[in-house]
Amino acid sequence: MSTVKRNAAAAVPIEGGRFMVIGGASLVGAATTAELLARGAAEVRLLDNFSFGSGEAIAHLRDDDRVKVVEADILKLHQLLQTMTGLDGVVHLAAFMTLSMDRDPWAGIDVNVRGVQNVLESCRVNAIRKLVFASSNAVYGYGPGVRGDLVEQTPFHSQGAPPAAILYGASKIMGEQLCRDAHRKNGQDYVILRYSTVYGERQHYRAANALYIVETHDAVQRGARPQVIGDGLETKHFVYVGDLARANCMALASDATDVAVNTSGPDPVTTLELVTMISEISGRPDLTPELVEPDPTKVRLTAGGAFRIDHAEAKNAIGWAPEVRMREGLRRLLAWRDAARAG
Amino acid sequence: MSTVKRNAAAAVPIEGGRFMVIGGASLVGAATTAELLARGAAEVRLLDNFSFGSGEAIAHLRDDDRVKVVEADILKLHQLLQTMTGLDGVVHLAAFMTLSMDRDPWAGIDVNVRGVQNVLESCRVNAIRKLVFASSNAVYGYGPGVRGDLVEQTPFHSQGAPPAAILYGASKIMGEQLCRDAHRKNGQDYVILRYSTVYGERQHYRAANALYIVETHDAVQRGARPQVIGDGLETKHFVYVGDLARANCMALASDATDVAVNTSGPDPVTTLELVTMISEISGRPDLTPELVEPDPTKVRLTAGGAFRIDHAEAKNAIGWAPEVRMREGLRRLLAWRDAARAG
Repeated sequence: MSTVKRNAAAAVPIEGGRFMVIGGASLVGAATTAELLARGAAEVRLLDNFSFGSGEAIAHLRDDDRVKVVEADILKLHQLLQTMTGLDGVVHLAAFMTLSMDRDPWAGIDVNVRGVQNVLESCRVNAIRKLVFASSNAVYGYGPGVRGDLVEQTPFHSQGAPPAAILYGASKIMGEQLCRDAHRKNGQDYVILRYSTVYGERQHYRAANALYIVETHDAVQRGARPQVIGDGLETKHFVYVGDLARANCMALASDATDVAVNTSGPDPVTTLELVTMISEISGRPDLTPELVEPDPTKVRLTAGGAFRIDHAEAKNAIGWAPEVRMREGLRRLLAWRDAARAG
Repeated sequence: MSTVKRNAAAAVPIEGGRFMVIGGASLVGAATTAELLARGAAEVRLLDNFSFGSGEAIAHLRDDDRVKVVEADILKLHQLLQTMTGLDGVVHLAAFMTLSMDRDPWAGIDVNVRGVQNVLESCRVNAIRKLVFASSNAVYGYGPGVRGDLVEQTPFHSQGAPPAAILYGASKIMGEQLCRDAHRKNGQDYVILRYSTVYGERQHYRAANALYIVETHDAVQRGARPQVIGDGLETKHFVYVGDLARANCMALASDATDVAVNTSGPDPVTTLELVTMISEISGRPDLTPELVEPDPTKVRLTAGGAFRIDHAEAKNAIGWAPEVRMREGLRRLLAWRDAARAG
């Protein structure tokens, strides 16, 4: 087990603390805000430019008067400098993922690289004690090279992956290194969490990997057999959004600093297992998956072999382990979708 | 051997052609320009913002009336759009390397990522037939993971490397992917050459790896024993600047497209062999290397084990192989330094 750097000053208690969640109007942002509030935060500012979605993801949070919504853009440093005052800790989630990077690599690179520089600079100027930066298991890359146990030392594989996916992964590598650079040069404390594919209540259609879940559910709801691309034996390793919200809070509260750890769910699944679970939870086990050929015009990310994203180091560094298994998390997500439609 | 994509329209003959070398006022830029001129180019525009060096590297080229110097900045897209008209091919060299990335990651990221986007966009708008993009063996990363034969499929290792080195490597990965994206979306033809550490006449002090050569030569000239950091058994794989100039021309002239290949010298050396060669060529074999402890405040790049950068794929794709062995290239470089000092 590796030795994690510890700094008492890097431990930011949630109770009574003031926090900002950047990219807050999102799946993870909403869950993280709820978790911070549940743990007694005095204030949670949600900063977002509302370029993705309409703010619906945080509508339910606006009634809590500890929540403040800040409409600002991380590419405008002055907006960060002016709105990030008086904070104890920051969770930085705002990013372009592979699908949006494919549509607009210019904006994607700005947000994922220059955006992180701006956030770090504003943390420095405003003497914010800790930053939690949402990175991704995309830093291990894509393609046939990605197999076996993925640990924090695993290199970045890109052979066989589409440009947008590699751009996304490399931009996250750069974001991580900007954090390390800020620690070395300015002593800024941070923890990087390498999220695996997130799913949960308020799931949207913007994440390439999580599309399987919502598209399968849509099909089953229509009474159609869900489609699985390829042989369905491809691995996915998801993490439940509530587990990530806990991880964000634990990373803030921990005395760990200058470290990057994986935050993945309990176990990987194959796409076939995933799709079958959704049919079963939806009460339509008769709608068995249909195997289809890949559509070459769509960006789909396939790893070659079986892999598992190891999260032991997160336990070591910040005391976190995932709690919600895939079937339970899916049950919650599908129940939320059913309720949202019924409502 | 892999199958390289070929496109007759991607073969841009040098003779009679019009070219631009971006980042032209440099070691590689000067040599590439000389090679283009020797092969009968009708015009070579050297674009540079002259932020590094004083233009001394190209002073000897200004007498040829086929050479035009363009002072412009790749971060200003309009300057590229306006000055890149009427060209057949472009060689894009401008970049921040590790040492400059460490000093100013903001500018470094702009130049290495946004700069490439601007160059690609200007190539598209100006209907330039081919781009040769100078990448780096930094895309294989640093640290103990880098060992054995490095081929084009080798993943990016970053464990144990300083932030600036990883930022540099990741920025080159992104530059490469932007080329791939431009090919897929717009059909733009390009060849990526992954340079290993360049050395040769007009060697400067800005490249972390090549510092060994000039610092050793300086020491021997002073009559001091050259210093070797660590045990001297660390591998370096250099490439002679004239060989790279040929590679740039051959990449332009070849019908290969949408490909990235290594361009390394004939063989790797250890730092101890390198330093010993320099003492010998300088006529001071008595000045044997002194092994010293690393200075932790300096950015030095060390790979863990023995490695060799394979260049067989460059032969396959563009017909190139290195010709100048290390001892001969060093002899030329040191002779040039002696002449420059005497002059």
